[in-house]
Amino acid sequence: MRAIIQRVTKASVTVGGEQVSSIGRGICVLLGISADDTQKDAEYMVRKILNLRLFEDESGRAWAKSVMDRELEVLCVSQFTLQCILKGNKPDFHAAMPAELAQPFYNSILESMRSAYRPELITDGKFGAYMQVNIQNDGPVTVELTSPAAPTDPKQLSKLEKQQLRKEKTRSKGSSESGREKSSLRSRQDPGASSGAEGDVSSDRES
Amino acid sequence: MRAIIQRVTKASVTVGGEQVSSIGRGICVLLGISADDTQKDAEYMVRKILNLRLFEDESGRAWAKSVMDRELEVLCVSQFTLQCILKGNKPDFHAAMPAELAQPFYNSILESMRSAYRPELITDGKFGAYMQVNIQNDGPVTVELTSPAAPTDPKQLSKLEKQQLRKEKTRSKGSSESGREKSSLRSRQDPGASSGAEGDVSSDRES
Repeated sequence: MRAIIQRVTKASVTVGGEQVSSIGRGICVLLGISADDTQKDAEYMVRKILNLRLFEDESGRAWAKSVMDRELEVLCVSQFTLQCILKGNKPDFHAAMPAELAQPFYNSILESMRSAYRPELITDGKFGAYMQVNIQNDGPVTVELTSPAAPTDPKQLSKLEKQQLRKEKTRSKGSSESGREKSSLRSRQDPGASSGAEGDVSSDRES
Repeated sequence: MRAIIQRVTKASVTVGGEQVSSIGRGICVLLGISADDTQKDAEYMVRKILNLRLFEDESGRAWAKSVMDRELEVLCVSQFTLQCILKGNKPDFHAAMPAELAQPFYNSILESMRSAYRPELITDGKFGAYMQVNIQNDGPVTVELTSPAAPTDPKQLSKLEKQQLRKEKTRSKGSSESGREKSSLRSRQDPGASSGAEGDVSSDRES
C-alpha cells in the first residue's frame, strides 16, 4: 500500500463541477492499494497517516505534531495509479487491487481512520469517479509512505520497523500462505476514473 | 531521486500571497533529490517526467500520450521532504541533498527539462521559499517515480530497466567509489521552507 501525504492549507474534491467534500488545514491523502495488500498493511497505514508529524507545535518547532495532535482534518482519496509499474513510458496498473475488491477494503480503511480519530474530521472523495482534487499544498510538504508488507525501501523504515519486519518474515516462513487471496479479476469502469477503478489497465509492452 | 507527478487541470505557486507561477493543463512535479543522486539520476528523471504517458490520445484512449506529445505544461517544484525517512512517526531528512548542493543541481535539472522540451512550457516554484502550491489534480492521477540509482522498488522497474540496473551493478563493483562525494553539510534556512532547504532536519529518535 502506498500513500502520498500532502500537508494542506485546504483541499476539496469536485465531481462533475459539484463539490463533494472539502477540508481546511490538515492533510490530503492519496491512497493506492496493491493486489497483495492485507489488513496488516491497512493498520500500518492508518496508524502512520494519523501519527505522522508534519506540523509544528505551539512554539513553532517543526515536525513536532501530527494531524491528530493538532485536531486538523484529513481528506482521503483512493488512487490506484500509485500502484503503477512503468513499462517503458507506459504506466501499467495490474499491481493495483481490482476495484471490486479495493472499494470495500478502502471503505474499511476509512472506517478504521474514523474510529482511531474523530469521524467528523475525516472526509473522502468519491470512489471510482472522475474527480478534480484541489490541493493547496502548504510548504510544500509531501511525504510518501509505503506499508512494510509491500516491496520495501529500507531507507523508509525505522530501526524498530525493520526489526518487526524481520520478525514477521521469520514467522511467515513457518506459516501457510493459503489464506491469501490473489485475485486476477479485472473490471472496466469509467475510463476517466482513476480513484480506485482499473478502467485503463494496460498489458501491452512498449516496443 | 524521487518525483511525485500529478496530472493537473491547472496548478500554481504563491509565495507570501503573491503568485509566482502558474500553468494550465499538464503535470505538477514535486522533486526530491537525495544526497546520493548523480547526473545519471537527473537524466533518468527528466526523460521519464517528459515521456510518461499520463494523457489520453485524440480518440480518448487513456495512458497514450505524454505531456510533450500533447504540448502541455510542466510546473516543477523542489521538495526535499520526499527524501523523508521515518523514525517512528517523526520525519527525518538527512537523506536529502543539502540545500547548497541541491539548488544548483535542481536548476540544472530544470535546464535539462527545458532543453529537452520547450522552455516556455516549463515553470518553477521558488527554491527554498515557503510556498503554497495549488494543485488541481485531474482524475486524480498521481504517479511516483524513483530513479534507478536510488534504493529501488523492483515493482517500479521495467524488465529493460532491471537488466540495465544489473549491468550497472556489475560494472560498479569493478570501479572505485572514490569519485562520489558524500557531503554531510547541513544548513539552517527558513524553517517554513521545505522546497529544497533542510531547515528542519531532525536527528533525534522517537522514544
